[in-house]
Amino acid sequence: MSGEERNIRLCLAYDGTGYSGWQRQPEARTVQATVEACLKRMTSEELTLHGAGRTDAGVHALGMVANFHTRTSIPVHGLWRGLNAMLPADIRILKVQEADPRFHSRYSATGKAYRYDLYTGPVQQPTRRLYETHVPCRFALDPVLRCLALLRGTHDFSSFEARGSRNPACTNGRGAVRTLFHCSCTPGPEPESWSFRFLGDGFLRHMVRNLVGTLLLVARGQMTTDEFSTVLQARNRSLAGPTAPARGLFLEQVFYGPLP
Amino acid sequence: MSGEERNIRLCLAYDGTGYSGWQRQPEARTVQATVEACLKRMTSEELTLHGAGRTDAGVHALGMVANFHTRTSIPVHGLWRGLNAMLPADIRILKVQEADPRFHSRYSATGKAYRYDLYTGPVQQPTRRLYETHVPCRFALDPVLRCLALLRGTHDFSSFEARGSRNPACTNGRGAVRTLFHCSCTPGPEPESWSFRFLGDGFLRHMVRNLVGTLLLVARGQMTTDEFSTVLQARNRSLAGPTAPARGLFLEQVFYGPLP
Repeated sequence: MSGEERNIRLCLAYDGTGYSGWQRQPEARTVQATVEACLKRMTSEELTLHGAGRTDAGVHALGMVANFHTRTSIPVHGLWRGLNAMLPADIRILKVQEADPRFHSRYSATGKAYRYDLYTGPVQQPTRRLYETHVPCRFALDPVLRCLALLRGTHDFSSFEARGSRNPACTNGRGAVRTLFHCSCTPGPEPESWSFRFLGDGFLRHMVRNLVGTLLLVARGQMTTDEFSTVLQARNRSLAGPTAPARGLFLEQVFYGPLP
Repeated sequence: MSGEERNIRLCLAYDGTGYSGWQRQPEARTVQATVEACLKRMTSEELTLHGAGRTDAGVHALGMVANFHTRTSIPVHGLWRGLNAMLPADIRILKVQEADPRFHSRYSATGKAYRYDLYTGPVQQPTRRLYETHVPCRFALDPVLRCLALLRGTHDFSSFEARGSRNPACTNGRGAVRTLFHCSCTPGPEPESWSFRFLGDGFLRHMVRNLVGTLLLVARGQMTTDEFSTVLQARNRSLAGPTAPARGLFLEQVFYGPLP
């Protein structure tokens, strides 16, 4: 509790299987609370870890970013080693850096990249079951690609937002309007596996999972590209498809500064 | 208990994390016992499931083969559906076929392919922790490739056999002599990840894990290629390196007939 105040930026990865998501909640095992508890033990300070976003229960992260303010004198390498020694094996700290005092993991972010992994064959490899969603189906790629082309750009994504989830304090007055710079669907590493990727300036609650759930209707021939376009324009959640399961979703990266 | 005796061949995959290996043991959760219990419920017969090999605790299988004799009239598709409905999610039946009465998953096998996955970077992605071994180290590929070239062909692999493990009934009189038709080490899907592959006519207990543990000494500069050659020729387990952890090992495929 002695030195100058420092702003420390963490990049971390986690297997979301055993967590009720990122955000601290009473009586639930969450990633934020788990990392905060280790930081409090190391620094003997009451501190808050600010995450770049709130992943849901079961969602994984390959490159979440978070920051906290502290007066500890422990060097960044010591924080990195100490956290990885104390944390459970399903959370790993990839990087610890000193950050500008004004850096905030959420408000400074310029974009995020999510991946959603899917397996459409008849029987899934058990070693993949926690990291890709299994939907045995015929998967028609062409109409999916046409829908992804419609999604690129700036839209009101209300149709793909979880009901009753809007927190006006978090949206900076932009409502449900977000920009998707990149969206793709490519074959995954195994036959009949697929990876969706979305790069945007921000994402509404459940947005990626609702997009994937609706695109799956298109892939299976249960919704046409025209109907998908209507859903997007309608700004009405009840027209879109179901929310795809959490296990296939990965927060890949959070961007600060110019996007790729 | 009515019809003709049938010989049924299964191809199955499992996540070995939650199992004390393949082979039935009192008071342990094993893959063989778990699948047998489902088969007994479905057929109301006392039967034995013969596996092509015995994977150790924590070892995964992408394509284990097993067979059993039965008089049930349930068609193969019904067995496939029924087993996958009853089995836990970490065991999946990929294929069920009628087999020749003389087919035996172990004695008829002409070869097996194993893969061993490794990550050598400083921090491992938590979603990979159960499926690749984490050894943070400098990994020198060239000397490893020279050692793999020495392993190809027919050798007495006593130096790489688990101590006290020989069951003379299982070796068909060939002792510790086995033939490796193919062995390789290639970069894995992520930077600093590596995959070893071994295709042979048979493998001694812990052979792949002992080979990988010793090749890791070579990769880190703790053993020369010449020393590795001496270890192979010595037929002495105490000269080889440690047994690499189970979690990185996958039984990829069992072959019947000509090898690839």
